[in-house]
Amino acid sequence: MSVVVSLGEDGNKRTRADGRNALEILLALVGDDFRKVDAEIRTRMVSDVPLIPELAAHIIASGGKRLRPLLLIAAARLCGYVGERHVRLAACVEFIHTATLLHDDVVDESALRRGKATANIVWGNQASVLVGDFLFSRSFQLMTQDGSLSVLSILSEASAIIAEGEVMQLTTANNLATTEDDYLKVIAAKTAALFAAATRVGAVVAGRPEREEAALADFGRWLGVAFQLVDDALDYQADEATLGKTVGDDFREGKITLPVILAFQRGDGAEQAFWRRCVEAREQTEEDLARAIRLMQRHDTLTETLERARTYGDKARAALSIFPDNDYRRALEGVIDFCIERAY
Amino acid sequence: MSVVVSLGEDGNKRTRADGRNALEILLALVGDDFRKVDAEIRTRMVSDVPLIPELAAHIIASGGKRLRPLLLIAAARLCGYVGERHVRLAACVEFIHTATLLHDDVVDESALRRGKATANIVWGNQASVLVGDFLFSRSFQLMTQDGSLSVLSILSEASAIIAEGEVMQLTTANNLATTEDDYLKVIAAKTAALFAAATRVGAVVAGRPEREEAALADFGRWLGVAFQLVDDALDYQADEATLGKTVGDDFREGKITLPVILAFQRGDGAEQAFWRRCVEAREQTEEDLARAIRLMQRHDTLTETLERARTYGDKARAALSIFPDNDYRRALEGVIDFCIERAY
Repeated sequence: MSVVVSLGEDGNKRTRADGRNALEILLALVGDDFRKVDAEIRTRMVSDVPLIPELAAHIIASGGKRLRPLLLIAAARLCGYVGERHVRLAACVEFIHTATLLHDDVVDESALRRGKATANIVWGNQASVLVGDFLFSRSFQLMTQDGSLSVLSILSEASAIIAEGEVMQLTTANNLATTEDDYLKVIAAKTAALFAAATRVGAVVAGRPEREEAALADFGRWLGVAFQLVDDALDYQADEATLGKTVGDDFREGKITLPVILAFQRGDGAEQAFWRRCVEAREQTEEDLARAIRLMQRHDTLTETLERARTYGDKARAALSIFPDNDYRRALEGVIDFCIERAY
Repeated sequence: MSVVVSLGEDGNKRTRADGRNALEILLALVGDDFRKVDAEIRTRMVSDVPLIPELAAHIIASGGKRLRPLLLIAAARLCGYVGERHVRLAACVEFIHTATLLHDDVVDESALRRGKATANIVWGNQASVLVGDFLFSRSFQLMTQDGSLSVLSILSEASAIIAEGEVMQLTTANNLATTEDDYLKVIAAKTAALFAAATRVGAVVAGRPEREEAALADFGRWLGVAFQLVDDALDYQADEATLGKTVGDDFREGKITLPVILAFQRGDGAEQAFWRRCVEAREQTEEDLARAIRLMQRHDTLTETLERARTYGDKARAALSIFPDNDYRRALEGVIDFCIERAY
């Protein structure tokens, strides 16, 4: 279990009666599969070009909860799947995710991710772009070896949608005319699409009917939206030690997220001028982040962002209702709570 | 035919008796297919996110000979293929190539490609990375729609090899200890792998036996090596109007290509110090490019690079020998000459 707990995710303060958090409960159910995914990832990122495994290992080790492969595995097991194909496909999903992280950090010029220096800072933007391309290609090689055109279709479409979402995000950056609707489109594409693809693939490998595929895709999609909403709130409230990423990153980059959109809309003239200077013109002083957070608190925009996350969490929970009420379903429901409660 | 002639490729001064160059002859044979590929490319690069088709159109329009899709089509026809699948797959190959160009220009910090401003200069590195990702994903979507796991395997492997080649190139950059063998490994991966995949796919869609697949892959591979050798020589001898790329780019970036490797190896102490300063330390003055070219001429390294290209061209020609001596084969042989003669 330490696999996950050690990965810097320590925001889940509400634990179950037995002291385990929701991710730990899920891991207890699918731990063998999860370790196989880990082994698959390490085996498949090899290359004769030493910089590739070196850089890939950095980002994979610095690494996160492996939430997407975990969801794929759990979805497959929820569907009664008993084979081994989901292991490789879970690795594919993590490779796609890792590739997008590598490219994101180049795009965002981020210096820290989960408390560690980002690959672009250590090895340069060039290596980050190219190793991202390698992992992306390797992912499609692995899917091809699996041999399911349905899976290839789901994951190639998700990849195209992620790229579209990231480009959309570029056009909303530093633009306070961005609406809540625009923002939701961006996060549905850049984040939720891969969650949805991962959970859908779980049903596909299990050979379940379209209705279950669609329900699991919905579960993943709404969970992904909730996850991103919480992430965007945390950028203004967690401290770096807890979240493991640089607090105020979004603010410094002028990224337009829901807490900003709502604070801008609700602000008076002076406040709107503040947002324009900081986020559109990106002229910021040391004190501006603290002031931004105070304005968000005054207008309740962080609280409200988390309330939206809970609403999407409810939609995710509803999507699971067609499945039998077993340990897997309860563990997946727990993941919804986990994703939302890490903000508290 | 003007499709190609207008694309800034005007280096082929030796034409056939009837005044047409080898690409024009090939286009006369497969012009209908080629126009369909063009239409497919334009249709498939659409997206609801306007920046994507805008940026993709820039690079595709600014763009080149479409040599890789042309080779795929011609290889399929050489194999007697009579269907339409090769059109879509040729578009896939061009998307992969375009994605790598977009990422290359970010990596190289190039300002000009074929005489036009590169996308990264016009739209920024961020958009270039992400639109590259989109085209790459779209390419796999189209392959999945085609439905051949063999094709998916060939092109996903080629994509991974290209990325490996680009990473290898990073590690050879500014490093005069790079051997000719290292250099050949880089160009085999970053350039020749996609040529080989394109021509091999021609045999695959036609359902030809492994022997013909392998022969066409060899043809593409050796042609690709020859093509890159010539490209690397041209960087020190063409003028921008002819080649449409910035002359001396490789020199300014400290890229280690064969003309540099040979000139360094053959240089005396003063010359080696010159190369170290210009290429390793990247301390250059206005006059250094002219001096670099003079040293290459003194040691015959450009001539020798082109001689190697001819040797690889001969290997490409030999690979075609198992096919019947028809118009397609002769046109493909003409392409070998075209790729090499553009340097004269």
